[in-house]
Amino acid sequence: MYNKNTSFSRLIGELKKLPGVGERTALRLAFHLLKNPPNMTALADALVDVRTRVKTCSVCFAITEADPCEICTGNRDISTICVVENSQDLMAMERSHAYNGVYHVLGGAISPLSGIGPADIRVAELLERVSVGGVNEVVIATNFSVEGEATGLYLTRLLKPMNVKISRLAHGIPLGSDIEYVDAATVQWAFQSRNQLS
Amino acid sequence: MYNKNTSFSRLIGELKKLPGVGERTALRLAFHLLKNPPNMTALADALVDVRTRVKTCSVCFAITEADPCEICTGNRDISTICVVENSQDLMAMERSHAYNGVYHVLGGAISPLSGIGPADIRVAELLERVSVGGVNEVVIATNFSVEGEATGLYLTRLLKPMNVKISRLAHGIPLGSDIEYVDAATVQWAFQSRNQLS
Repeated sequence: MYNKNTSFSRLIGELKKLPGVGERTALRLAFHLLKNPPNMTALADALVDVRTRVKTCSVCFAITEADPCEICTGNRDISTICVVENSQDLMAMERSHAYNGVYHVLGGAISPLSGIGPADIRVAELLERVSVGGVNEVVIATNFSVEGEATGLYLTRLLKPMNVKISRLAHGIPLGSDIEYVDAATVQWAFQSRNQLS
Repeated sequence: MYNKNTSFSRLIGELKKLPGVGERTALRLAFHLLKNPPNMTALADALVDVRTRVKTCSVCFAITEADPCEICTGNRDISTICVVENSQDLMAMERSHAYNGVYHVLGGAISPLSGIGPADIRVAELLERVSVGGVNEVVIATNFSVEGEATGLYLTRLLKPMNVKISRLAHGIPLGSDIEYVDAATVQWAFQSRNQLS
């Protein structure tokens, strides 16, 4: 049971491949599962199901079980496309319930240092969708990191000649924040973009 | 993809059942697995394998794939039995490479507050093993918690009339410790059990 060739050691090995899971956590998870056999089976089934069923939408490239995905085929405003880096960002947008358009998942951001250029993310596919017509606005919701900002600028330059409104999520102080703890650059931005109340 | 009935949501639900895994961690793990399909399959396979192969040893009650386990059938000193609360503790003992005897896994400790009495852990099975004969020493390696100490005392009382040597893991300062940060009770014990050097 305690050498490398048992199923238990193999399970620990697989758990250790998960982000943030080391030797001790893997052991704890493995023993937890061992004490709850139905959970173990349910987790295995869920993994197999995800592996077989989940694919990317051929329109927006979000993860989905149906193709096109339920957002692309749902009752949404298809004249607005929100550009996100990945499906996690898409889910964060959806959780906000602020948006009723469709998405375009780039699959990353341009990062010369990591060797990721425009051809490695779905830029061409976005331009194709916009050039087909019927798109009024592209909301750029890439991350506010160096890579995300660079990708946003790059997309803006390509989209500008295509006669489409381009917007970017607003910078500012996060809701519920104590200004004391917000970084200086964000406070500076929030001050410059201050809104008149009356 | 983002409602409750998809395989992806089900995977997140299963991951959330793991100890220390909340909504955010579950999402992160699920997306990590989604990006590494071979890992997903390997984890599913490992879970199924553990579920089908791992059982408890009929002699010592440790988790094992073969019955009796490789420790009970291995080249070990069967006249010494080390009593541990669970298989995790057994693995910690094995990692120390200090012990060459066999084990007895109680499956818990006596805890009246949690309604766990001597009949709920494998006390009778231990007495049975000792009464059969051939056992010279029982090393009590239950945890140094209230429950573990109580279980150790209880076992000592039952084993004493059986003409067997009973020992307990030593208390003291952990190796590499800064005495400044060791709790007072441990320092007190270490002082009282101090060893003469010359």
